[in-house]
Amino acid sequence: MTTKKLGRQTVAFASPPSIAGFASVVGKKEGDGPLAASFDHVEQDDSFGEKTWEKAESAMQRLALSAALDKAKQSASAMDYIFAGDLLNQCIGSGFAVRGQDVPFYGLYGACSTMAESLSLAAMMLDGGFGEWAAAMTSSHFCSAERQYRTPLEYGGQRTPTAQWTVTGAGAVILARAGDGPYVTHATTGKIVDKGIKDANNMGGAMAPAAYATIKAHLEDTRRKPSFYDLIVTGDLGKLGSEIVRDFFHRDGMDLKNYGDCGLLIYDLEGQDVHCGGSGCGCSAAVLAGYLLNGLRAGRWKNLLFCGTGALLSPTSVQQGESIPCICHAVAISAQK
Amino acid sequence: MTTKKLGRQTVAFASPPSIAGFASVVGKKEGDGPLAASFDHVEQDDSFGEKTWEKAESAMQRLALSAALDKAKQSASAMDYIFAGDLLNQCIGSGFAVRGQDVPFYGLYGACSTMAESLSLAAMMLDGGFGEWAAAMTSSHFCSAERQYRTPLEYGGQRTPTAQWTVTGAGAVILARAGDGPYVTHATTGKIVDKGIKDANNMGGAMAPAAYATIKAHLEDTRRKPSFYDLIVTGDLGKLGSEIVRDFFHRDGMDLKNYGDCGLLIYDLEGQDVHCGGSGCGCSAAVLAGYLLNGLRAGRWKNLLFCGTGALLSPTSVQQGESIPCICHAVAISAQK
Repeated sequence: MTTKKLGRQTVAFASPPSIAGFASVVGKKEGDGPLAASFDHVEQDDSFGEKTWEKAESAMQRLALSAALDKAKQSASAMDYIFAGDLLNQCIGSGFAVRGQDVPFYGLYGACSTMAESLSLAAMMLDGGFGEWAAAMTSSHFCSAERQYRTPLEYGGQRTPTAQWTVTGAGAVILARAGDGPYVTHATTGKIVDKGIKDANNMGGAMAPAAYATIKAHLEDTRRKPSFYDLIVTGDLGKLGSEIVRDFFHRDGMDLKNYGDCGLLIYDLEGQDVHCGGSGCGCSAAVLAGYLLNGLRAGRWKNLLFCGTGALLSPTSVQQGESIPCICHAVAISAQK
Repeated sequence: MTTKKLGRQTVAFASPPSIAGFASVVGKKEGDGPLAASFDHVEQDDSFGEKTWEKAESAMQRLALSAALDKAKQSASAMDYIFAGDLLNQCIGSGFAVRGQDVPFYGLYGACSTMAESLSLAAMMLDGGFGEWAAAMTSSHFCSAERQYRTPLEYGGQRTPTAQWTVTGAGAVILARAGDGPYVTHATTGKIVDKGIKDANNMGGAMAPAAYATIKAHLEDTRRKPSFYDLIVTGDLGKLGSEIVRDFFHRDGMDLKNYGDCGLLIYDLEGQDVHCGGSGCGCSAAVLAGYLLNGLRAGRWKNLLFCGTGALLSPTSVQQGESIPCICHAVAISAQK
C-alpha cells in the first residue's frame, strides 16, 4: 500500500468516509443567536438539569451523540470508536460523556481544534480499514470554562475588547465507511505555531498564524485554490483573529472571498455582547454539526474546508509567563466523492 | 479493503509498524530504583534545569524524543506525526514539548494510558497508509502532578497505604512503516470502565477492572492464550491493582504467570517508600521505552502485551463526588512479524 500523503501535512482518503449523522446541542445564548434554527437542541436551562456545570457539559455531549446516532440510524454499540475531548482539566466533559457508552474510546486534547482533530482521526481510522463506524465529538460550556480559565461567574470580571465568549454547545458527527455523503475527503494535520503572543484574552490573535499555516499547507498539498471551496471556515478566531488570517492571505496575493469563522457566525456581535465572538470546542463543533453540515446536505455548498483552531495554553502556563502554542487541523468535506 | 478488526476492540496490523527507536528519561528516584540501568538518561536534578516543574516535564519529554530520534537515526522533520499527551491541565507537558518540533501533532488525553494510546494511534496511522514515520510519547513529573492533583509539595501531606507515587519520567517511541522490528502487531482499544470506586488514593483498584476488561477482550479477539505472551504488563496498577487483575483472571480459571506491572517494576517497594508503587503517564512510558523494549531487542522476550491504564478523573470530578472512569489500551509487540 502506498502512502496517502500529499505533501507534508495532508492525507487524501482513498475511500472517503461518509457523514452518516450529525447533531448539535447548545445553550440559551447560542439559541438566541443567528444560527438558532440550525441546532438540533437549544436548552433554555444551561444546567441541562445537572447539579454542576461540568456535569451539564457532559450531559450536552451525551445529548449530541445520542441525536447524531439517531440521525445515522445507529446505536452506540455499532460504533467502532469514539474520539472525543474538551477543554476541562483532564477532559472530564468527554470522559463522563463516554462513560456508559460501551464503545472503544480515544481521548483527545486539542483545545478548540478538537472537532477537527476528532473528525480527522475518525476518518483515518475508517479509511485505514480499522472499523466501519466512528463518532467524533466535543463540547464546551461557558460556565465551566469561565471558572476554570478565568474567574468564577460570581466574581463578575470585566472582559477585554479582544476577549471571546465560550460557547455553551456540543457537536457530534457519525462517520461510516460507506454511505451517500457528505464525505470527508482530506485531512491536514496541524503543527504547533507560537508567534509569542502572551495575552490569554487575545486567543483569536494567537491562533490566527496557526490557522493561516494550516490552510496554506492544505492548499499547497492539495494544489487547490481557495476558490475550490465554497466556504473555508475557521473554528473560533473571532473578529480580530479572522481579520489577521485575511490579512496574511492578502499579503500572499490571495483574497479569501469565501472565508468565514464559526466564532463570528454563531453570535450577533453587535447585539449579544460577546466582544470578538465565540470560542471554545463547542463553537466550531456546534456550527459544523448544525449550520455547516445542514447547508452541505441542503446543497447550499458543495465543498467545505473546516479548520479547527486550538490554543494549547493553560492558566498555569500563562501564570508562568509562557506564550501561547496554537494549532489548527483542517478537514475537507465535500457533497460528492 | 476489508477491515482489520478482530472482534469488537482489536485490530491486527496488515503491515506491522516497526519500532525504530525508543528512549526513556527519568528523575533521581527512578534512577535509584531497580530499572536504573535500562533508562537512557537519569537526571539527578528533577528540575531538569528549568524554573518550574511543568517546564521540567516538557524538557524531559523533549529529551526523550530527541534521544529516541537519535537511536532511530532520524530527525524530527522526518516524522509524519507526533502523538503525545500527559496529565497536566490542558496537557501543557506535551504542548510545550512539541512546540518548535515543526511536526504535525495530535494531542491526546488518556491519563496514564497515554503511552499505549499514542502507540496505538501512531501504529494505525502508519499501517493505514497515512505516513512513513510517527512518534509516540508522554511524560509525568512527581512535582507537577502532586501540586495539581493533591497538595503542594511544601504542605507535606501524608499518603494513604493504597496511594502510588507519580513517576518522574518520559518515554518516546519512534515507529516506521518498514524496519527490522520489534513490531507493533495488534492494538486493542479500551472502553471506559467505572465500577464505582471514588477513592482517588486508590487508583490501582479503580483501574484494575478496566485492565482486566481490555486484556480479556484482547485475548478473546485474537484467540490467543495468556501463555502466548512472554510478558503481559499493565501500566500503573501498583500492588493492589495488579493483585485484583490476577484475582479476576484466577476466577476465570486462568492464572497469569507471565504478568507484571510497570508500577511495581520501576521502584523497590520495600526500600523506596512508594506505598503501592509507581503511577503516572511516565511510569509505563519509561518502563516500555527502557526495560521492556530493551529486553525485547535483547531477545529476553519475544511477545509482549503492553497495557496502558488510565484513570480519567480530575480533582473537580472527585470534589463533585463522582466515581473514577478508567480505561486501558493494549498494544501487542513482537520481535518478529
